[in-house]
Amino acid sequence: MEQFWINGVPGRLIDITDRGLTYGDGLFETMAIRRYTPRFLDLHLDRLYAGAARLGLPAPERDKLHGQLTVAAAGIDEGVMKLILTRGPGPRGYAPPQRQAPTVAWGVQSQAVQQSTQIRVRWCATIAGRNPVTAGLKTLCRLEQVLARAEWQDASIAEGLMCDELGLLTGGTASNVFLVTGGSLWTPAVTHAGISGVMRRVILQQARGNGIEASETAVTRQVLLEADEVFISNALIGIRPVVQLEGRRWSPGPVTRSLAGQLVNLGVYECAGSC
Amino acid sequence: MEQFWINGVPGRLIDITDRGLTYGDGLFETMAIRRYTPRFLDLHLDRLYAGAARLGLPAPERDKLHGQLTVAAAGIDEGVMKLILTRGPGPRGYAPPQRQAPTVAWGVQSQAVQQSTQIRVRWCATIAGRNPVTAGLKTLCRLEQVLARAEWQDASIAEGLMCDELGLLTGGTASNVFLVTGGSLWTPAVTHAGISGVMRRVILQQARGNGIEASETAVTRQVLLEADEVFISNALIGIRPVVQLEGRRWSPGPVTRSLAGQLVNLGVYECAGSC
Repeated sequence: MEQFWINGVPGRLIDITDRGLTYGDGLFETMAIRRYTPRFLDLHLDRLYAGAARLGLPAPERDKLHGQLTVAAAGIDEGVMKLILTRGPGPRGYAPPQRQAPTVAWGVQSQAVQQSTQIRVRWCATIAGRNPVTAGLKTLCRLEQVLARAEWQDASIAEGLMCDELGLLTGGTASNVFLVTGGSLWTPAVTHAGISGVMRRVILQQARGNGIEASETAVTRQVLLEADEVFISNALIGIRPVVQLEGRRWSPGPVTRSLAGQLVNLGVYECAGSC
Repeated sequence: MEQFWINGVPGRLIDITDRGLTYGDGLFETMAIRRYTPRFLDLHLDRLYAGAARLGLPAPERDKLHGQLTVAAAGIDEGVMKLILTRGPGPRGYAPPQRQAPTVAWGVQSQAVQQSTQIRVRWCATIAGRNPVTAGLKTLCRLEQVLARAEWQDASIAEGLMCDELGLLTGGTASNVFLVTGGSLWTPAVTHAGISGVMRRVILQQARGNGIEASETAVTRQVLLEADEVFISNALIGIRPVVQLEGRRWSPGPVTRSLAGQLVNLGVYECAGSC
């Protein structure tokens, strides 16, 4: 059963004039709860507060929020925490209200850890819009991802890959994408589209700390198809090796295996044995 | 004082899992109420239902909704009606739920008609993302418009103009933009960005019905600056002539004046005398 808090108070109802609803004027985070703790909570809050600064959203006091989230997760061995920050209620009109009272809401839910598996993916026809102003941020404006995810029903396809108007890979609908070519790790830059995932950040740090060259760069469809290894990541799954993209097949390779092993050591234990 | 209804019941609270909030997964309409009636209600519902079909949103029964909105406006001489349609509540994850129960919400507010005036506008630095999948629709994902509108505080600037990544004009933050060149009317096409405004549609119909050539096309900054006349439109203001864009000045011209006069005859009486 899911539990929610809004501005620190148990409850699940928000005002219809909340700008998170009316304009997508806000941000969110999705965190794994492992052993009664939101995993990588500090990294998630780093991203949230950096995003709030970019959007000019008033942010709640961080130490207090950190404490509230820690308490909310304390009853849950394995589960998911979702955190939403919006510009709060306001009158009609795009201009941010002069007095902003942000809405901070979170919810927790028990959910058994799903052991990572090798996955099949597909291309989505829905493109990801390019906009440097919001690129990298996990904003509440996710309709493109909804439409991309609605393109397939086949349960054997775990994820869909999206490209922007230029044909550059932006990521999965709900994941970041990595590829390995000649022993180096590549992932799409998030300067014009895509989301700067927390697990993505952890993976890049791990790679660089362990002598694997890692680049955030433009990735075309062709570059992806020619890669030696491909995997996806997000906060709830760690790493999942991609073994099929339509006609192309891969086997999990040594770099993916090494990174998955490093994540297990950081508490992302659902990665164990996937490669 | 504002009044709201959610799924036909008076109230203003929505569930935190509503996909309108969590993903911007919905649409909205803003209508003028004039003489106790939502102006151009059928055109607004045409757009809403066309958008719902494009997004795969389940839509409420149209005749019933039409009746409910008519009743909600019946106590208001001059005001504003806002209508929101979302994919409704759902579990975490972008995939639309198998059983969708849409949320339909509306609100009404008395607001004295603001007589149209000649206006000054500016360029916004925030770009409008291009995406043919959602272009033209008034989706709940409006963060770009929020950020563009937050660029200026100067109350003497009525609107900001946005361009896409290619430098093509997409419209104002909350309006469509028209220009007149050599007696012909031009407005940005809404195939890759921008919103297909109801007032825009009325203006194009009026122009074409009165022998004014009207094109929906790509408009560069330079084409705009070289135009003979420029005006903006939306559902609440009808037409407002632009007389200054940074260093460039215009006077309201004959085509703008003619169209404003035609709108007055259609009930957009706030246009009278603006040119």
